[in-house]
Amino acid sequence: MADAIQAVVFDAYGTLFDVHSVIRRCEERFPGKGTALSQLWRTKQLEYTWLRSLMGRYADFGSVTRGGLRFACRTLGITLSEAIEDALMDEYLRLAPYPEVRAALEALAGRKLAILSNGSPAMLEPLVANAGLARLFDSVLSVDGLRVFKPHPSVYQFGVDRLGVNKQQVAFISSNFWDVCGATSFGFRTYWINRSGAQQDELGFAPAAILTRLDELPAALAA
Amino acid sequence: MADAIQAVVFDAYGTLFDVHSVIRRCEERFPGKGTALSQLWRTKQLEYTWLRSLMGRYADFGSVTRGGLRFACRTLGITLSEAIEDALMDEYLRLAPYPEVRAALEALAGRKLAILSNGSPAMLEPLVANAGLARLFDSVLSVDGLRVFKPHPSVYQFGVDRLGVNKQQVAFISSNFWDVCGATSFGFRTYWINRSGAQQDELGFAPAAILTRLDELPAALAA
Repeated sequence: MADAIQAVVFDAYGTLFDVHSVIRRCEERFPGKGTALSQLWRTKQLEYTWLRSLMGRYADFGSVTRGGLRFACRTLGITLSEAIEDALMDEYLRLAPYPEVRAALEALAGRKLAILSNGSPAMLEPLVANAGLARLFDSVLSVDGLRVFKPHPSVYQFGVDRLGVNKQQVAFISSNFWDVCGATSFGFRTYWINRSGAQQDELGFAPAAILTRLDELPAALAA
Repeated sequence: MADAIQAVVFDAYGTLFDVHSVIRRCEERFPGKGTALSQLWRTKQLEYTWLRSLMGRYADFGSVTRGGLRFACRTLGITLSEAIEDALMDEYLRLAPYPEVRAALEALAGRKLAILSNGSPAMLEPLVANAGLARLFDSVLSVDGLRVFKPHPSVYQFGVDRLGVNKQQVAFISSNFWDVCGATSFGFRTYWINRSGAQQDELGFAPAAILTRLDELPAALAA
């Protein structure tokens, strides 16, 4: 299968970029509530992307992320000032890539490399630039122009269209199992990065392979 | 506004029918884990409806509910036999209506009354019959023929089409805030039944009124 893969497309949040620094920052601001806050925030952020997509009421990922933060704080009885809200939102622009990301991307040179993310351009561009990864990607693709979020098939089709390859030539990499399922359903060859030992969701699809770190990817693609 | 409302359309699970008996049954089967199991089960049940709708991979609510149960058990380290799985699934056919439901429905007589639910006909028909409520409803409508779940607007449109009314003449009642938002976005006049003191999600819509019990509805509709 190895030589069939012309492009490697990555999810961003949780796959290339470690969102744990957001948890740490939540804990600094609201001691004892950081984990609960960041978990509920992330849950609502995702729920809102799915619900808004189904309702046909797209709002960009920044708005959705901010809405999830506000809901989570209200539910947990946390008073959120405008300054702290802005500070927590800014964390999303400075997430650290996982330690193995740079070497893994460099080992994949020769193939087209891209990010395909729910993030808006206003969130993705500073994120990739701040991490010093911009020159390693051929494309950083946002759903924003489509006004619908993953796992709608039009998102994965957009990746195909922009990269100028067939869907059978794409390896898609995500730590989010539901994103893996959406991409598999669409027709990508998928690799699930399961860093936390999570269970597979019951959505009727499975990845081609399960990896625990991105530096296992070059060997997996060659297998 | 009162005389504009020709039809009152209810969500089923959590709105008319109390899903707490499922929690109790989970606790009987798996002592100490009942609450965690039923919460994760419900979370995944909903997630799967949204994700499958977005992916264009509909499976009926029974399959989705069963999938959520299996995932929740695996994640919590619970061994689920086929017999216990079937017994827990059967609970969904025998949920008790909230105590005030019958009187509230009887007080609304004269308007068209309907259920509009994610449940499949195979789940809804025994549920309504077992509760002795069948004669109180003009229609029990399932998304199943549409092969997409709430809050996709086609679901609410289906209600309008089947009831033969304009959307402006429909009062829609749900305890699920995201369902209220979907229905409001579509154009229904909505009433949120907030029994648990939950916060409103940040989805850009709000109900016409918030009630804590269904027997407040006749007065609210007349207001």
